[in-house]
Amino acid sequence: MKDQITPIALVKAVLAGEIFAVARMMSYAESLNEGCQEALNEIYRHTGKAHIVGITGVPGSGKSTLVAQLCKTIRKTKRKVGVIAVDPSSPFSGGSILGDRIRMNDLVGDSGVFIRSMATRGTLGGLARTTLTGVDILDAAGYDVVLIETVGVGQDEIDIVQAVHTTVVVSAPGLGDDIQAIKAGVLEIADIHVVGKSDRSDANKTISELKSMLMLGAQSQQETEWQIPVLPTCSLNGQGIEELLSTIDNHLENLKSSGELSQRRLDIARTRLLKAAENILREKFEYHSEGKINDLTNQILSGDLHPNAAAKILLSQFLREME
Amino acid sequence: MKDQITPIALVKAVLAGEIFAVARMMSYAESLNEGCQEALNEIYRHTGKAHIVGITGVPGSGKSTLVAQLCKTIRKTKRKVGVIAVDPSSPFSGGSILGDRIRMNDLVGDSGVFIRSMATRGTLGGLARTTLTGVDILDAAGYDVVLIETVGVGQDEIDIVQAVHTTVVVSAPGLGDDIQAIKAGVLEIADIHVVGKSDRSDANKTISELKSMLMLGAQSQQETEWQIPVLPTCSLNGQGIEELLSTIDNHLENLKSSGELSQRRLDIARTRLLKAAENILREKFEYHSEGKINDLTNQILSGDLHPNAAAKILLSQFLREME
Repeated sequence: MKDQITPIALVKAVLAGEIFAVARMMSYAESLNEGCQEALNEIYRHTGKAHIVGITGVPGSGKSTLVAQLCKTIRKTKRKVGVIAVDPSSPFSGGSILGDRIRMNDLVGDSGVFIRSMATRGTLGGLARTTLTGVDILDAAGYDVVLIETVGVGQDEIDIVQAVHTTVVVSAPGLGDDIQAIKAGVLEIADIHVVGKSDRSDANKTISELKSMLMLGAQSQQETEWQIPVLPTCSLNGQGIEELLSTIDNHLENLKSSGELSQRRLDIARTRLLKAAENILREKFEYHSEGKINDLTNQILSGDLHPNAAAKILLSQFLREME
Repeated sequence: MKDQITPIALVKAVLAGEIFAVARMMSYAESLNEGCQEALNEIYRHTGKAHIVGITGVPGSGKSTLVAQLCKTIRKTKRKVGVIAVDPSSPFSGGSILGDRIRMNDLVGDSGVFIRSMATRGTLGGLARTTLTGVDILDAAGYDVVLIETVGVGQDEIDIVQAVHTTVVVSAPGLGDDIQAIKAGVLEIADIHVVGKSDRSDANKTISELKSMLMLGAQSQQETEWQIPVLPTCSLNGQGIEELLSTIDNHLENLKSSGELSQRRLDIARTRLLKAAENILREKFEYHSEGKINDLTNQILSGDLHPNAAAKILLSQFLREME
């Protein structure tokens, strides 16, 4: 391990866009390497240029294939594209299924595309943290567009979606009934709707359902100029992908001309600050509470103490110790 | 509001299993009513009798219908059943779609069934907290079986699943490809697998895929006696639901005879303690940080401070104040 390049020594190569450096820096950040923060501070200074796009949809919506096709289309415009695919891996296995990578084989060998899968490894907030660090690295390394692919359910993922400029929500025809789709809680956050698998006969039904839903919600949209579009795409033949890309580009232009981009950047900075602080606080707490919880757990188990009452005891001990 | 019954005055009626009291107590708990904790402490003393069963599956798997049918089947055995349906509601609307209730109309009027939908309302950890409080209330009120229905993705939901005795994972044929299903991260936590919509022609494919997956994972299961079954069910005609119920009952017997139930109870108590403490800590932090974050946010936005560096400054201020 002694011979490895330190994070800070890699910064220059990251900023020059060298792929090995980008990959190595992401690994350092994921493994919470000790010397990493100094490098990430420096990298962070060079961010703010990329267009960050979230691609969200329930399992089975076909968003991985869509992301792969979108990458190819972005490459045709000579722009560099980075992808971070977020797998909500099981807390029990700690592993992630690299399905996305399998589908992205066509892109291998193109130095203008960088693809990374990330997993949670059971740390609350950890997924959002490593994902957004990954976005910083790609942004600073000169990737013009950074796509974040997520399943779109859960707090970690909400944190991620709140840190993008443009959110694309992918739906698919026949994915259970409408109520179930709405339950996934991602429809309302879309800047752009995509209905994948548009070659299927029931695609039109899904498209009109989404359009009706948008009509119903139109009142709350009147404040912004942006009309949320519903775009059909077909991953089999690539239909609709170019239109999707130009719509994504238009959305950024709209954010800039309306002044909303500045507000989104401010919101993102605020969210990242609070989440980072929460994470550090939780880590400190976990470290200090170790060893004090067995007695309290037994009192909860016997019914003598409600979990909340026990928690208050634990916390007051923690705060006394932090003095 | 003056004439309303206070939480503590309701405890006796809750313990007697009166439905109005159970419903009211849940509303108090959800609204974080001030006087609630005393009542919840008392209620908590009377818990530990119910069999707590998590029913988990991705959107579109048909688990809501399955839960409704399972309720009917449980009622045939004269046991009382409570259901808490967890909707991962959007942080943007704050609302929840009560689809589950619509499907459960048949059960209305049966005082042996209690059904409640819960939503996150954007508070991290809030969903798990109100859900588990709801389980306590139902347990103390004499409901023999408590079903928790969740989408099964995300931290809040993992917290919930870690607090049940038996986890049923519902899959459905044709729900995207295998990789996507595994990505949902719920397959590995199952004590019992159910393949719904078994009338569909592709159901057998899903059943054999699940069985192969279980064979692959068999090494890690050898420590326990329980062989994870894969059960086909059909919500249209109710096929397989009685077998599912007897398998759920068998699983509890198995937990008891193997001694694993005590361990699960200990784990649940420990998890609840830590989560409760984390939630209180986060609330304190949010309260104290209000007003200090604007300046730090601007420094993040300008690139002068990395979010993590700013978070450390914010935190040291917080801990100084807590002294």
